[in-house]
Amino acid sequence: MNDKISSLIAAQRAGYAMAQPFYTSDTVFEADRKLVFGQEWWLAGHSSQIPNAGDYLLFDILTDSIIIVRDAQGTIRAFANVCRHRGSRLCTDLQGNTRRITCPYHAWTYNLDGSLFSARLLDESHDRSDLSLHPIRIEVLSGLIYVSLSNDPPDFAPLRRRMEPVLAPFGLDRTRIAHRAIYPVQANWKLLVENYNECYHCTSTHPEFSRSHAIHMPENRVAPLNDAMRARSEECGVPVDYIDQIGSENRTGGCDHSYNRYALLDGFQTGSEGGQPLAPLLGSLTGYDGGASDAYVGLLNPMLIYCDHAVLYRFHPISKEASLQEIIWLVHEDAVEGEDYDLDRLIWLWDVTTHADKRIVEDNARGVAAQHYVPGPLVSMERFIQRFIEAYQTMLGREGEKP
Amino acid sequence: MNDKISSLIAAQRAGYAMAQPFYTSDTVFEADRKLVFGQEWWLAGHSSQIPNAGDYLLFDILTDSIIIVRDAQGTIRAFANVCRHRGSRLCTDLQGNTRRITCPYHAWTYNLDGSLFSARLLDESHDRSDLSLHPIRIEVLSGLIYVSLSNDPPDFAPLRRRMEPVLAPFGLDRTRIAHRAIYPVQANWKLLVENYNECYHCTSTHPEFSRSHAIHMPENRVAPLNDAMRARSEECGVPVDYIDQIGSENRTGGCDHSYNRYALLDGFQTGSEGGQPLAPLLGSLTGYDGGASDAYVGLLNPMLIYCDHAVLYRFHPISKEASLQEIIWLVHEDAVEGEDYDLDRLIWLWDVTTHADKRIVEDNARGVAAQHYVPGPLVSMERFIQRFIEAYQTMLGREGEKP
Amino acid sequence: MNDKISSLIAAQRAGYAMAQPFYTSDTVFEADRKLVFGQEWWLAGHSSQIPNAGDYLLFDILTDSIIIVRDAQGTIRAFANVCRHRGSRLCTDLQGNTRRITCPYHAWTYNLDGSLFSARLLDESHDRSDLSLHPIRIEVLSGLIYVSLSNDPPDFAPLRRRMEPVLAPFGLDRTRIAHRAIYPVQANWKLLVENYNECYHCTSTHPEFSRSHAIHMPENRVAPLNDAMRARSEECGVPVDYIDQIGSENRTGGCDHSYNRYALLDGFQTGSEGGQPLAPLLGSLTGYDGGASDAYVGLLNPMLIYCDHAVLYRFHPISKEASLQEIIWLVHEDAVEGEDYDLDRLIWLWDVTTHADKRIVEDNARGVAAQHYVPGPLVSMERFIQRFIEAYQTMLGREGEKP
Repeated sequence: MNDKISSLIAAQRAGYAMAQPFYTSDTVFEADRKLVFGQEWWLAGHSSQIPNAGDYLLFDILTDSIIIVRDAQGTIRAFANVCRHRGSRLCTDLQGNTRRITCPYHAWTYNLDGSLFSARLLDESHDRSDLSLHPIRIEVLSGLIYVSLSNDPPDFAPLRRRMEPVLAPFGLDRTRIAHRAIYPVQANWKLLVENYNECYHCTSTHPEFSRSHAIHMPENRVAPLNDAMRARSEECGVPVDYIDQIGSENRTGGCDHSYNRYALLDGFQTGSEGGQPLAPLLGSLTGYDGGASDAYVGLLNPMLIYCDHAVLYRFHPISKEASLQEIIWLVHEDAVEGEDYDLDRLIWLWDVTTHADKRIVEDNARGVAAQHYVPGPLVSMERFIQRFIEAYQTMLGREGEKP
Repeated sequence: MNDKISSLIAAQRAGYAMAQPFYTSDTVFEADRKLVFGQEWWLAGHSSQIPNAGDYLLFDILTDSIIIVRDAQGTIRAFANVCRHRGSRLCTDLQGNTRRITCPYHAWTYNLDGSLFSARLLDESHDRSDLSLHPIRIEVLSGLIYVSLSNDPPDFAPLRRRMEPVLAPFGLDRTRIAHRAIYPVQANWKLLVENYNECYHCTSTHPEFSRSHAIHMPENRVAPLNDAMRARSEECGVPVDYIDQIGSENRTGGCDHSYNRYALLDGFQTGSEGGQPLAPLLGSLTGYDGGASDAYVGLLNPMLIYCDHAVLYRFHPISKEASLQEIIWLVHEDAVEGEDYDLDRLIWLWDVTTHADKRIVEDNARGVAAQHYVPGPLVSMERFIQRFIEAYQTMLGREGEKP
Repeated sequence: MNDKISSLIAAQRAGYAMAQPFYTSDTVFEADRKLVFGQEWWLAGHSSQIPNAGDYLLFDILTDSIIIVRDAQGTIRAFANVCRHRGSRLCTDLQGNTRRITCPYHAWTYNLDGSLFSARLLDESHDRSDLSLHPIRIEVLSGLIYVSLSNDPPDFAPLRRRMEPVLAPFGLDRTRIAHRAIYPVQANWKLLVENYNECYHCTSTHPEFSRSHAIHMPENRVAPLNDAMRARSEECGVPVDYIDQIGSENRTGGCDHSYNRYALLDGFQTGSEGGQPLAPLLGSLTGYDGGASDAYVGLLNPMLIYCDHAVLYRFHPISKEASLQEIIWLVHEDAVEGEDYDLDRLIWLWDVTTHADKRIVEDNARGVAAQHYVPGPLVSMERFIQRFIEAYQTMLGREGEKP
């Protein structure tokens, strides 16, 4: 491991925020790129985006681009979007349908299983089976498509075993994307993740959210609400499992994951402005339990599942000091906009909340870059930041092992 | 000291311009940041900007932001604009009034003396007296507010002792800001400072300035004008002290400073287009001596004081190759725009002059970045550049001492 | 030589594309700057741009700017556009006429032979003959002006000896610039050069070009066309020499160069949309041979000469990941736009072709920056890329010799 980074990790004080270089140093960002972005699973899309054979979509992260394509047999596959000849991007449209993948430069052509179909004038001495597209590791979980840039990513199997049953009742594989929004944030990606990981700021920053969600309150006020919810959840067929396999809590040895159902405040059936439903019930649910499920697939892919819609988050690093926050709203695949749901009402809460988060995270980024920034103490409501710091710094510590 | 920088300093030829890396190297800019920007005093504002208790203004430099605030007792204080919790910027408006300073992120709140007033849910085990805002060194001299980012900045006391009396008759503490203008310049900050430090270029570049100011002329033509002025100065109550405590001339061991009164050309009572007064007399002056005072507070804060207005300069580094030149015009606090002075006429000279400087400094910056740039000989009228080079390179040489 | 670069060169596989760092690494770009851009000859302009004494034009490359000026005796000279005083750019207009070169900063003035004419107030102790403008190596070949930033550039004499006779019949010194176009390309300069060096991509990318030019075809189909052309060429006075002194083929020890005449497809007299002539015949040609001459002066300056116009290419590096592709169209100096040629028709082919190249080269740049990029095998039609790689990597290997 890089000396600078190992000293930084050694100097980390438990229960305190991270030091400046974690947010501003080129060395740390290079380590992030290799040991976090290059290893972790990323939410790359939803199976409903590519329903037919030959449908593809691109997932771009930093300098990499991945083709996610459904082959003739219906299997979803992923390949590096790089020609094996002289490296051109193969697909340039973000989404499309094709029988084969043809490079726009010299027309080398690949089958949807990645094998080289034709390369005009290529000398016969070359073994064409060595010239297949680079396969990318892919997992589809309840319709959610995850990829890793690593050939040896964190094991997905324990996560799948545990998360598939709790996600099943929501039928996310039978949803579709109602809306996507991208919020550019001038901040290191870790400040976005930390912001997402605590609701200590919700009281001062998110009046809209705090009106309906209880998690900005101290635990002793939240607990009775959760207790009351659980009975309703059972009745409606909503899982209330508590899974915490993140960071030091992760005993599976595989990919981090978590699931938790918590209560909305009284009168709120879903994350809407007034508490009323926003869209048809998801999956096999039979009613509204007035709760929301907070789930993670890997460290970087949180989602929030209400009874009638799900909200997926993506933190895209752009550079050490810029990121994109993306939000994807899922509704039941049969829901028709304008009839079954009103788009403005559906996206209202998380759009207004993310705009506010953008502002405070950018102020945070300006502050941590200052000479006089000193990491301060976390409060108990920020315990998931502490967990994130541990999990993240463990990843950076892996360098020796993953060359 | 960094090896590269010590070789550069060793290679500096007396009486010659500086070598390319002083204007283009990342290493030098990092040293500038630490040893110059991080040590020197900066003009941060004027006391008239924050007349009342709770009034504050921000002073930003590179990644740092400083809150300058007048407390309930009327004392002007300065703090790093960084929350002690997770580092958010505290104040985001450039100017305002507040009873306490509340962080927009998690609402940690500080008193105007910097002490922590409240931090919701913070564990009682933390000593709150350790969580005060970081105090910033501040000095107010004749209403001019100076700050240093260092905990151990150059001693201000000798400067104050010597400069307070010569500035007193101008009553700068009883002025107000008539106008501020910012000129972005694509050049290293040192090229702006060097440009300001010589009037060798005035003949070819500044016809407006050269019509009224004599300092572009050889000394033998300037001396008789100054002799003639001194009698008038005495009559009008204008100090004609000559103070030169800059660089190697500085025997005080403290902050560099200088003061010098020089004559305008015949017929010019102030720095106006036609020579006529521009605004009411400053301070206790009883008439126009037809001169201008050139003064420095530290190496980076020049000002020019006419009988009826003062012009303050700020050189803001943005990056190794970009800067902002800011100019602030002060007039008597009772002067009313449109009645006592005409703003366009007041700012005319230094606005037109700074626009011209921007152009030639940017051409200079392009040239010194070229492979074939070789530092050439300075002429006698550029002796203050030589002085600046010495003082600046001495600062860079301090690295061993200030870790 | 830099260790990183020598390992990269050692790892280069013959017959394969170059590895990622050649396109993305700062270290390689710095080596490019020093060992390629700082040594090679650059097309800087055409003599018709500066017909009269005192006419000048600027040639800018990265941080350098060169003044190309015709002196009172009619000789074309080149100087670094840097004042010997404090380094300001001297000329800021891209083109002009002047009796002497005067610095806009302090009015130091130079004669058109580069000697210092005047420097106001400069101490007499300085030897003014040491303060001449830095002369830049320049060669004018058939009206084409080439410069090198090096004091010891590749020897131009063997190239001149060999190329002057084959260029003479085209009378390029009696042409003028009909049009210039600049195409910004987000790609490392080497991807532009490689793209120019092969026509393997022409079939898929350039239908307009492929309709008239045979070089995208396998050699066995091209040879008979060339055989047929040669008789016509002789009749029309068009040289059909074959010169290949590039990279490992270069036995002269001097500057790389090449010349080759190849046939257009039947029915095409020149590079026009329909095959018809576009402009008056060049030089001493007596008719259309239906061919085009592909020539190089140095590794970076290709040109294509039809019977009635010539097309010059410039690859301007801007940064490691951005370049400008410039194209200059030359016609006979007596040709009058609108009468003797139609500008839209003249530039059509290479404008449409360069727009397409921009697109594919930018896709190539995105791809080679990806983690999963692996250099693939070149096909036989890409043999000039192989030659470029060899010549280029030999230049990088020179570091030990040229300090």
